[in-house]
Formats: sequence, structure tokens, C-alpha cells
Amino acid sequence: MKYCSQCGNKVIERIPAGDSRLRFVCGQCEHIHYQNPHIIAGCLPVYGDQVLLCKRAIEPRAGRWTLPAGFLENGETSSAGALRETREEANANAAIVSLYTLFSLPHISQVYMFFRADLLDLDFSAGEESLDVALFAEHEIPWDELAFPVINKTLEHFFADQKLGEYPIRYADLEYPRRKL
Amino acid sequence: MKYCSQCGNKVIERIPAGDSRLRFVCGQCEHIHYQNPHIIAGCLPVYGDQVLLCKRAIEPRAGRWTLPAGFLENGETSSAGALRETREEANANAAIVSLYTLFSLPHISQVYMFFRADLLDLDFSAGEESLDVALFAEHEIPWDELAFPVINKTLEHFFADQKLGEYPIRYADLEYPRRKL
Repeated sequence: MKYCSQCGNKVIERIPAGDSRLRFVCGQCEHIHYQNPHIIAGCLPVYGDQVLLCKRAIEPRAGRWTLPAGFLENGETSSAGALRETREEANANAAIVSLYTLFSLPHISQVYMFFRADLLDLDFSAGEESLDVALFAEHEIPWDELAFPVINKTLEHFFADQKLGEYPIRYADLEYPRRKL
Repeated sequence: MKYCSQCGNKVIERIPAGDSRLRFVCGQCEHIHYQNPHIIAGCLPVYGDQVLLCKRAIEPRAGRWTLPAGFLENGETSSAGALRETREEANANAAIVSLYTLFSLPHISQVYMFFRADLLDLDFSAGEESLDVALFAEHEIPWDELAFPVINKTLEHFFADQKLGEYPIRYADLEYPRRKL
């Protein structure tokens, strides 16, 4: 951030009065520009003993498999965002069952929220951000080709919970060192 | 938003290629400025059969009682943010027990995350954003003077769950019409 979104003058980094963190503050109008974590909302679409995964067409981790998920938008609920991403990435019709896994990832300032969902039919296909979309039973999951650790963890929980028939909501802080560019 | 934070030229509202939503886009450098929901992280600090509430010194809802909570910051986990807010608003020492309630509030583009926490000692006091901090047993809760519906709901869940000795994580979408200004 270099310029004030309110008046167009240059911003400087300083700690505002009553605050304890460096913020971008306008040198002219003094508007404080806060930057905060983003929410990624997604679905774990389930069809019988299979789950739906998308092969990513875009970076990061193009070519790897993921659950449909993306940035929550202003004005939508987390569950609505999860269903929207499922439609966009997999052209899939799903219905929310329950919130399932949450992960706080401070190194990238993101919070992931995955919902268990029922895949309502087999009329799905790759959306613009996917190379492929497919159903996988537990023994077919490409564990070494999943896109992100939160995908591995959500699927591990799911297949373990499925054997017990109970799906408690699970939360974890995942603190990794920031990857070097 | 009126000006581009990257180059300082004027932004316009338009739907970028491959997108379906109006975004602020720079007319000069074409940078797309996404705006996304914020996370509010907070604690439900428990001491025996009492919970800690803060009387708000600031708008909105100044003078009303709330759980200590505030905007999650970049680089911190949700649980760390909840503890930070508890220190800032109540000068209180607490330890996280578990994530407890989540609320998605699309009309204000916020997601609330409350954690059950143990209040570790009685050495608390009003922080800068609080007029007062106090412990309340269930029959002492000022139900009609709570600041936000998410506070009522979290406390209602807590006192009901306390009788059963189980505290499942609870999620709800709370869709209210936006209040007129």
C-alpha cells in the first residue's frame, strides 16, 4: 500500500495514537488503513462413500487436488460462500450439512472454514479455476498430490469420523514459518 | 474507496474479466481492490460459575455489556486474537479452553469467533475501550443491556451447556436486514 484510498495522497507506516501496531496512515487526511485476515470458505462435498475434489488450474499449487474453497465475499454468509465456491469450481450442486473444520493460518493471515455438504447429483464438471473434478473413495485419495495441509487434515478427520458416525466441529491453529519466495 | 492504493490514481467500480462482482479497479494500473469480511475474535472468560463481561466505552453500543472481542489482526491466530482482546479490554489473564461459538453476519460482513477461556485470576480491570469489567453469575446477567445478539446467543448456549457439562462448537448464520443509519 502506497497511496490513501480516501484522498490519493501518500501513506506512511506509523503506530496511530491508542494503537500498538504499525498501520498505513495517510500523511494528508490521516485515514488509517487497517489490513486484516481473510476467510476462505469451502465445502467437503460427500456422495455415498466418496468425496469430490477439484484439480487446481491456477496457482498456488496448480495441478494439485483440493476441496472447492475460496475467499468469502462481503455480504454473504460463510455457508453461502462455501456453496458458491463449490458451484464456481466444480459446477456442483451441494447442500450444507454442518460446519466441520476450521484452521487459523497466521503466516498467511487466513482462516479456513470447511462445511460438510451433500453432493446432490452427479452433474458436475470443471469450473474455470479447475482442470478436473472427480469423486474419490478413501483408498483413492491422492494424499501426496493434495494442494494444502488443510485439505489433508480435513479429509483425514472426515474418513476417521465417518467410521464413528460422528462429525464434531474441529478447530486448529496451524503455525508454519512463512515460506521463502 | 476513491483512489488506488498502488498508484494513487482514481478507481472505478466495474466487474473485472472472469469475475461476477463489482470491484474497485484502478483506471490507470488496473489493480483490483478486493474487499472481504472481517473476523471478530473474542473470549468467554469463565471463573467458577461466573463469566466476565466488559461495559463498552466506545460506539457502537457504548454503555452496554459485551464479551471481550475485536478485529483479528494479520499474523495472529484466532485464539491469540481472542486472548489479546481479553487483555486489552479487561486487563484479564485467561487461557483458551476451546473454540465455542461462530456467527456469520453478512449484513455487516463479519464472522464472529468466541472461545471458552478460563479466567486465571481476579486481577482484571477496565481497559481503554471499557467503562467497567465485572463477573456475573447466570442470574446476574444483564440480558437487556447486552451489546449485540451474538453476546446473548453465546451466553444462552453457555449456561444451557454448563448444566449438561458439554460444550459443542456452535455455528449459525445470522441474517438481519442492515440497520438504517
